[in-house]
Amino acid sequence: MTGRLFVIGTGPGNPDQMTPEARQAVEAAREFFGYFPYIDRLNLRPDQIKVASDNREELNRAEAALKRAADGIDVCVVSGGDPGVFAMAAAVCEAIDAGPDEWKTVDLTVVPGVTAMLAVAARIGAPLGHDFCAISLSDNLKPWEIIEKRLRMVSEAGLVVALYNPISKARPWQLGRAFEILRETLPATTPVIFGRAAGRPDERMLVMALGEAEAERADMATCVVIGSPETRVISRPGLPDLVYTPRFLEEPTR
Amino acid sequence: MTGRLFVIGTGPGNPDQMTPEARQAVEAAREFFGYFPYIDRLNLRPDQIKVASDNREELNRAEAALKRAADGIDVCVVSGGDPGVFAMAAAVCEAIDAGPDEWKTVDLTVVPGVTAMLAVAARIGAPLGHDFCAISLSDNLKPWEIIEKRLRMVSEAGLVVALYNPISKARPWQLGRAFEILRETLPATTPVIFGRAAGRPDERMLVMALGEAEAERADMATCVVIGSPETRVISRPGLPDLVYTPRFLEEPTR
Repeated sequence: MTGRLFVIGTGPGNPDQMTPEARQAVEAAREFFGYFPYIDRLNLRPDQIKVASDNREELNRAEAALKRAADGIDVCVVSGGDPGVFAMAAAVCEAIDAGPDEWKTVDLTVVPGVTAMLAVAARIGAPLGHDFCAISLSDNLKPWEIIEKRLRMVSEAGLVVALYNPISKARPWQLGRAFEILRETLPATTPVIFGRAAGRPDERMLVMALGEAEAERADMATCVVIGSPETRVISRPGLPDLVYTPRFLEEPTR
Repeated sequence: MTGRLFVIGTGPGNPDQMTPEARQAVEAAREFFGYFPYIDRLNLRPDQIKVASDNREELNRAEAALKRAADGIDVCVVSGGDPGVFAMAAAVCEAIDAGPDEWKTVDLTVVPGVTAMLAVAARIGAPLGHDFCAISLSDNLKPWEIIEKRLRMVSEAGLVVALYNPISKARPWQLGRAFEILRETLPATTPVIFGRAAGRPDERMLVMALGEAEAERADMATCVVIGSPETRVISRPGLPDLVYTPRFLEEPTR
């Protein structure tokens, strides 16, 4: 018998946005593998052990967790948001695929969560109300040319675009370049949402037109959502603007 | 003072996948607007009133809820999954945009949830571990030509595709046609996941190769996820296959 290996998402950070299923996995596990700030959201018991590591060492962390589970320990791998969206579930699967045969028999449970773009969308209205895509802007894991090609094709296809990992100290120019590419296809009035830390005390929501969008408004905790040509802004007296994408589309986009 | 209007998602159907935040909104509201099967998941108190309606009358339902909120009643609009993904949050915003000015001052809170593709992905591994998109296959709300164009572009762009509303009695041929279009671009070995009722007692997960994928395997409760050329299947002794899309992409897709 192996131990259990749970891969959970904490949700966007507000404890009330983490599912009871994820909470139960936390209660059942003994050792926790993940990036410090995510594990610190969990209020572990004194008998629970956190094995923290650098956020960039995802594969190593997955391997360490699998090794412990194969040894019979119940372990929990912790992501922010949803573990299946640019997060640890894929790293755990990669490690199983490339690792020793015994890792394939580990009792694995992936627990879904609320991913950042859904939390941002909810705070601002319904920008993901029609077809949309999620693209990671990190060129650590794929060539930048691929990212440019994808941005061109999805904006031409009329999809709303949620950008994960938009900017970091090591990747300062990519978001600005992404805005340039999207401006080639989309109207300058297209709403851009900078959704920072949705649901947390330091939340900050900002809506700008694509023509004026500045990469400096984003940081590592930001999910950037770029509307489609159909996305609309509703002004409300005394309340923040609402941004939404209608469910219907009458005419070909272009 | 208006009443509060909450727009919530119940998650995929397993009560443990509904967030505490959504549960609190349910407790705070007095009248509930939504499709019967979703409201029935909530175990309402005797003093709470459910105002059910046909699932296709989304705009009417949003208007009815806004009218009651403007009258000072705390109301809750209920979707399955996440309310912002092909669901009621966009309908409520459409109604606010087109409705009387007083609806713009209604105290609106959209509460995010776990949407179907995340629940399906978690049950099967990590197929959404890289760039992906969500497309509704319903041509009730947009022309079929637009859907075909989008399927071509996102598969050429190398995104994993999650199809919502894949099939119904009134729309029997669209999913088969979508598979045909995707076969023009993607390898016949590309994994296709038919994820039905993820997390519920009647859950059924099925993985087929795109070359053999049959539309009849889907029903209205199914979310269909089609891999990218990078998506891989891991065979495990005595356990279901895992399907995942690696986080990294070394070479241009084609």
